[in-house]
Amino acid sequence: MSSQAGYDFMCVPIYHPRMKRELLVSDVHKRRPTNLTRPDFVLTSNDWNRLVVGKFSPWIDVDSPDAQIKEHSELVLQQEMDYFSHLGLPVMMFRLKGGNHVNLARLIYNKFTSLHFNCSAWVVVPLESPVTTAISYYRSDVTEEVPSEDTWEWWNVFRSVANYNKHFNLALELSADIPSTANIERWLGEPVKCLIVPTSIFLTNKKGYPVLSKAHQEVVKALAKLNIQMVIQGNKRHEDMNFYVTYLDHLYKSSVSDDPLQTFGQGYEDFLQCPLQPLMDNLESQTYEVFEKDPVKYNLYQKAIYHAMLDMVPTELKTQKTLTVMVVGAGRGPLVRASLNAAKLSDRNVHVYAVEKNPNAVVTLLAQKEDMWGDKVTVISSDMRQWNPEEKADIIVSELLGSFGDNELSPECLDGVQHLLKETGISIPQSYTSYISPMQSSKLHNDVNECTDKTKHPLAHYETPYVVNLQNIYTLAPTQSLFTFIHPNLDEVIDNRRSEKLNFEIKKNCILHGFAGFFSCVLYKDVIMSIAPHNHSPGMFSWFPIYFPIKEPVHLRSGDKLSVYFWRLCSDKKVWYEWCISGPVPVPVHNPGGRSYYIGL
Amino acid sequence: MSSQAGYDFMCVPIYHPRMKRELLVSDVHKRRPTNLTRPDFVLTSNDWNRLVVGKFSPWIDVDSPDAQIKEHSELVLQQEMDYFSHLGLPVMMFRLKGGNHVNLARLIYNKFTSLHFNCSAWVVVPLESPVTTAISYYRSDVTEEVPSEDTWEWWNVFRSVANYNKHFNLALELSADIPSTANIERWLGEPVKCLIVPTSIFLTNKKGYPVLSKAHQEVVKALAKLNIQMVIQGNKRHEDMNFYVTYLDHLYKSSVSDDPLQTFGQGYEDFLQCPLQPLMDNLESQTYEVFEKDPVKYNLYQKAIYHAMLDMVPTELKTQKTLTVMVVGAGRGPLVRASLNAAKLSDRNVHVYAVEKNPNAVVTLLAQKEDMWGDKVTVISSDMRQWNPEEKADIIVSELLGSFGDNELSPECLDGVQHLLKETGISIPQSYTSYISPMQSSKLHNDVNECTDKTKHPLAHYETPYVVNLQNIYTLAPTQSLFTFIHPNLDEVIDNRRSEKLNFEIKKNCILHGFAGFFSCVLYKDVIMSIAPHNHSPGMFSWFPIYFPIKEPVHLRSGDKLSVYFWRLCSDKKVWYEWCISGPVPVPVHNPGGRSYYIGL
Repeated sequence: MSSQAGYDFMCVPIYHPRMKRELLVSDVHKRRPTNLTRPDFVLTSNDWNRLVVGKFSPWIDVDSPDAQIKEHSELVLQQEMDYFSHLGLPVMMFRLKGGNHVNLARLIYNKFTSLHFNCSAWVVVPLESPVTTAISYYRSDVTEEVPSEDTWEWWNVFRSVANYNKHFNLALELSADIPSTANIERWLGEPVKCLIVPTSIFLTNKKGYPVLSKAHQEVVKALAKLNIQMVIQGNKRHEDMNFYVTYLDHLYKSSVSDDPLQTFGQGYEDFLQCPLQPLMDNLESQTYEVFEKDPVKYNLYQKAIYHAMLDMVPTELKTQKTLTVMVVGAGRGPLVRASLNAAKLSDRNVHVYAVEKNPNAVVTLLAQKEDMWGDKVTVISSDMRQWNPEEKADIIVSELLGSFGDNELSPECLDGVQHLLKETGISIPQSYTSYISPMQSSKLHNDVNECTDKTKHPLAHYETPYVVNLQNIYTLAPTQSLFTFIHPNLDEVIDNRRSEKLNFEIKKNCILHGFAGFFSCVLYKDVIMSIAPHNHSPGMFSWFPIYFPIKEPVHLRSGDKLSVYFWRLCSDKKVWYEWCISGPVPVPVHNPGGRSYYIGL
Repeated sequence: MSSQAGYDFMCVPIYHPRMKRELLVSDVHKRRPTNLTRPDFVLTSNDWNRLVVGKFSPWIDVDSPDAQIKEHSELVLQQEMDYFSHLGLPVMMFRLKGGNHVNLARLIYNKFTSLHFNCSAWVVVPLESPVTTAISYYRSDVTEEVPSEDTWEWWNVFRSVANYNKHFNLALELSADIPSTANIERWLGEPVKCLIVPTSIFLTNKKGYPVLSKAHQEVVKALAKLNIQMVIQGNKRHEDMNFYVTYLDHLYKSSVSDDPLQTFGQGYEDFLQCPLQPLMDNLESQTYEVFEKDPVKYNLYQKAIYHAMLDMVPTELKTQKTLTVMVVGAGRGPLVRASLNAAKLSDRNVHVYAVEKNPNAVVTLLAQKEDMWGDKVTVISSDMRQWNPEEKADIIVSELLGSFGDNELSPECLDGVQHLLKETGISIPQSYTSYISPMQSSKLHNDVNECTDKTKHPLAHYETPYVVNLQNIYTLAPTQSLFTFIHPNLDEVIDNRRSEKLNFEIKKNCILHGFAGFFSCVLYKDVIMSIAPHNHSPGMFSWFPIYFPIKEPVHLRSGDKLSVYFWRLCSDKKVWYEWCISGPVPVPVHNPGGRSYYIGL
């Protein structure tokens, strides 16, 4: 019936509320049948599987201080879990009422680790504790231990005891009180699968339809980014139940922006990818094609080259001088095209060398030379570090940056070609800086946990950075800059090793799962290309951020100072990062000696 | 020379202090030889191997904020480590000067994880920071960030960053200021290998010999229990250097008491053993022999039986009544002998049934019956749970306790025989209680880490309790009682499951590595047998404590409330424990469903 009414699924108690049972240990041990609920043939298996979220009987309290209630609840809980499994329900649902659900966590976790149990859990947690307001009136008089009324703490104890098991997901319940923005943000780092919207919080607009307050709308929109389900809960308070559905549906859709970055990243949300190693491996045609489609990146490059050309050749000399531009790592030619466009726009004469080590890409370059570029472009099929021309460049253009700036060895490559640059020459980019911020993400932590590879060091998956379209995360403190590289590098001895210690102030109790990494780059003067949160180039999608995990989640407390070390280290053969934490809780150095992850030279 | 003077080894800087070098990156990259130290042939390899602890050049500072000093120090450190390794030195030694040695920790840890590096490290840490006193004068004026002057925190950051690597050990340096007892106790949970005693802290007694103050003596004695080396440091301030050696030697030896428990436990200190499973496996003759030698245990049993006999048969009836005593789990007969002795001393008539399931032990029982016991004893070769005699017992005596009380299934075994007990009958023991205390022990944590067994669950070694002669530990809070069992069990439905939550107050910053477990047992009325710290039966050595590890060390702060859950759970086939922590940092439930460790029924 609800299915025909347009709902995707419904959440129902499987055992009838009136049928509260008295079970004795002896009954269960003797496996006496009980006939206190709906038999399984009221629905087909397929319908049970798709349409029903089973709710536990609400009076179950396996953490009760009363031994009899506790024992009875344990028996009923086992019985209901077994029956849900028998019915083939995809999800079971229950509510946390406080911070003390340790036994509940243990019992359901035990069930999840047993074979043949395929149900997962939606843990209902109210966004605001119903008693927060009540307590604050009396707090000065309280002498008893007051349980935490931060409902995130309830969840945190629950899922930690249950070993972060991935079958536990969240069903957040919207409350009349609006939680603070900081609280909402912290939930964005948790595995939220569902938002429960009680009909009681809807207002009525002038036309008589149900709407949410502005503040409630913001909450819904923030969570909608996580691809959640929505559940309407409670009695009908307006003419038609469908009004609620229609309204929420509208709200959900309006939360999806048409940002090209978001469109491009769809389907890749929070998906772990290994960073490219373009120096060791040749890129495929498809990879080039994807990156060439970026609507912003090459415009920025073209703008940077344009201004550099204007600066290098005064207008009065523009007919006398031909600029030598070297595109190192030309790929299939987007920077060659950008250089030629810039020359046209600035009305300067150029000769472009397109240097590319991937012979497959050289084929494409040569075809374009033949068809369009002619004498203006010379294609060089060589590793840029081995190429030895007689002529020197006015401008060297490269696109060697990874998500973390230097992590695809741009510094080493550009150092290797800077002897080709005239003393007055310009490197585009001129400099780049990596950024990190500490972050919480149960989803990513769980996914990294499962990345074990028996052929590698047992800790390898915790010591490898991943490229990720970060969505289901909570940023614990503002992003800070880490390592900077400048080109050309005029130091007497070039040393691309770096080490840095950063301190972050933690504002709320939270969990550290690792660090989000970004870069910002000065292409030329004020032409900036960035994926860092504070100055992300709008609409540019060529890079997702990078994620440096840590092996064990660290529980941080409000007011903590988090001290983080990062190293960039080099040997003859490779470059790698190491990272660790010295406080408030010291954490072992990750990836010592580059044992788990490195970038080959 | 020092070897001839009676020293076991000496600690020396290998590079001459005057030969401070200026190294350039380029020198090292070109592997230019340096000839700035003692060549290797001044000693034989064998002597280098046995006699010399190499000290790093003291001016090395790889954590310097000055980039040049840092870089230079890194090069020198690598050079010295390589040379120490070349010489085959067993130990290298260096000093922590504060809490910021993160890069040092990283670099040496990296070296330890590389192949062909067999040197280990003694990290010199002063027991008291030299600046503590100085700073306290000025603290009110301090606006800058003050580094921690708790030297344990220095060590804690260092070894945590170095991933608790077992090659890092401590050389504690005694200072003129005496640290608090609580501080000393915390060091007892750390891998201390050496105590450095500066000659400057010695006093001179009336006869002109060097002695230590009473307070310093206590520190030496406390640490001597950990089997440490002692190093005398500094200039001779008395007539003969040997005076110091003789004095410390005397102090060391006087710290070893002649407690039988300590004598018996020698060589087993902090050694992980798997608990016995006497129900599933038959004990060996040697095991019986060891336990029968306990000078205290069987006296306590005899005393308990004696009082029970006196209480059960009034003197005026002593000729008319014969007491039936059943020894369940008689082994090779120590409790049979105790029962017969008690009967003799109390002048009561007895008939003893010696019930034993191990056929090998029954052989020994039968031999004793033939030789000594005659009709007074009937030997029953049977599992106590299957035996069905017609007669009932006045007293059932058993010794089924494990280190944790109920952990060798005493409750289940005694429940299984209590139908043999008369309504007025007595069980000896009458009751027992398990105890736990939270503890810190780097040594045990490291040893558990290495107990991986590929045939078991990957977390199995973290989810198994171990029997351990606990020495190198720090107890974080006083022991508290956990589970109690009473015999005979007169409950309507017998349920040997238990669950308990305990709260411990943490007094100092420390690290939780798990829980020490003990038992205390009421044999009869006021005859108590215990291995719990607060009432350990003096001289009894039959049980070492039990150690419940946790997977990841938890950093606790002074003032924290540690909330611990323990469960004792039962199925038809097995009994097991689960444990977890809910605060201040929640820790996953260990051993869910008994997946890693259980006791078979």
